[in-house]
Amino acid sequence: MKILLKLSYLGTGYCGYQVQANGVTVQEKLNEAAQALFGHPCDIVGCSRTDSGVHANEFCAAVSRKGETGLQTGIPIGRLPLAFSAHLPPDISVFDAVWVNEDFHPRYDVCEKEYLYRIYNRPVRSPFEEGRSCHIPRPITDCDLARMQEAAAYFVGTHDFSAYMASGSKITDPVRTVFGSVLERQGDVILYRVRANGFLYHMVRILAGTLLAVAEGRLEPDDIPAVTASRDRSRAGITMPAEGLYLNRVVYPGHLFRTGKENR
Amino acid sequence: MKILLKLSYLGTGYCGYQVQANGVTVQEKLNEAAQALFGHPCDIVGCSRTDSGVHANEFCAAVSRKGETGLQTGIPIGRLPLAFSAHLPPDISVFDAVWVNEDFHPRYDVCEKEYLYRIYNRPVRSPFEEGRSCHIPRPITDCDLARMQEAAAYFVGTHDFSAYMASGSKITDPVRTVFGSVLERQGDVILYRVRANGFLYHMVRILAGTLLAVAEGRLEPDDIPAVTASRDRSRAGITMPAEGLYLNRVVYPGHLFRTGKENR
Repeated sequence: MKILLKLSYLGTGYCGYQVQANGVTVQEKLNEAAQALFGHPCDIVGCSRTDSGVHANEFCAAVSRKGETGLQTGIPIGRLPLAFSAHLPPDISVFDAVWVNEDFHPRYDVCEKEYLYRIYNRPVRSPFEEGRSCHIPRPITDCDLARMQEAAAYFVGTHDFSAYMASGSKITDPVRTVFGSVLERQGDVILYRVRANGFLYHMVRILAGTLLAVAEGRLEPDDIPAVTASRDRSRAGITMPAEGLYLNRVVYPGHLFRTGKENR
Repeated sequence: MKILLKLSYLGTGYCGYQVQANGVTVQEKLNEAAQALFGHPCDIVGCSRTDSGVHANEFCAAVSRKGETGLQTGIPIGRLPLAFSAHLPPDISVFDAVWVNEDFHPRYDVCEKEYLYRIYNRPVRSPFEEGRSCHIPRPITDCDLARMQEAAAYFVGTHDFSAYMASGSKITDPVRTVFGSVLERQGDVILYRVRANGFLYHMVRILAGTLLAVAEGRLEPDDIPAVTASRDRSRAGITMPAEGLYLNRVVYPGHLFRTGKENR
């Protein structure tokens, strides 16, 4: 058995999830906390390699003893969230932990992921939104929002999303299935919520940039199918800044989780 | 004429509003921005001396030329919010500016202020709430919340609020009129909203601490009138941490503002 952690983090202070040479990452902080808790080094595999500055409301990571496929611990699984959080900095928090089989893989076993893109839409910036949204000062009217929604609906379905993938990416299969793609106004914030079986590199940020191009009249909602079909990155919108992006939910098939009674 | 600025700030990085010897304050940052914009030193008088770590959704400050009662500028008043914000750090933002008479005083002319106290109520802390709310891990049930609301209603009216004032405070008249005192659950957050013609030192944080004592059963809602009447600080609840407190609104009598046509 190994342990699947559910965590949230404010990405502002991190160079993304995955350990790398230049800069502090979330994985590194989890490694330190796991070492302190379990008394030995661990392998911690994440569900996604989020970019520098990207946030997570829900991120999943599997923990096993370093070099092994499982982990043993006397700490009750229900205590792990608070125990982990106590060893983590204030901008990372573990809120759930479950036992999973040793062949569980946090990235390959995902059946659905949901991302949020957060736009702060008021003429003057907000001190409370700094680093947590993309500031668009020009008012996005209800009419603009309806156009964005019309465009967003075209992303739903199984498509080759090459037009919305960062150039230079080495993905061999650019086909993904988008299950949902909706916008919502919450006060001064516009939230774009997109669910899919997987995402290409920078895909959500480019989808959001394309919707902004629609809001600003540089694209019509009806242009979207042709942009998608073109597979041409230059026809889509800009890559929006990382700071507005949140991994919001990660869904696995239910049979991969052990029930409480089977634990350990 | 002088200029009244409306601003918001994240208080985390500041030793409160008012300039002091040890530590950076919001007033100091406003002084620097005003000097850069107007080309001369200014006097900037705030509506309140918020404590270290306290935030403001709306804070008011009046700007005049240093040592004088007014100010002249060629910058149109409508441009001032963006112009000021451009000279301020990301955690302070000016969102409105209006002309006011030279005898206007941002503190003495206030007729009503509203504060929010923000409680984050989930077992595990949130990376996104760090420094922006007080974390209460124990679940506050709907029944607890109803008790808190019953207690909060007793604060409304004109009372001697000495029991809810930090000890050692030198206020001579501890009578204030509370216009509204309500609680609201917003997802994992409980917001306490209190409006009054003025507040004593630490008053909102002690009112919030008293409501928490009611939620936790250390006080009954019906105890509140006796706690208030006692004028005894030790009978009220604890002083809640500064990080959950927000100055939310500052109201002045309408006749103190000049209309657009009269400007300059």
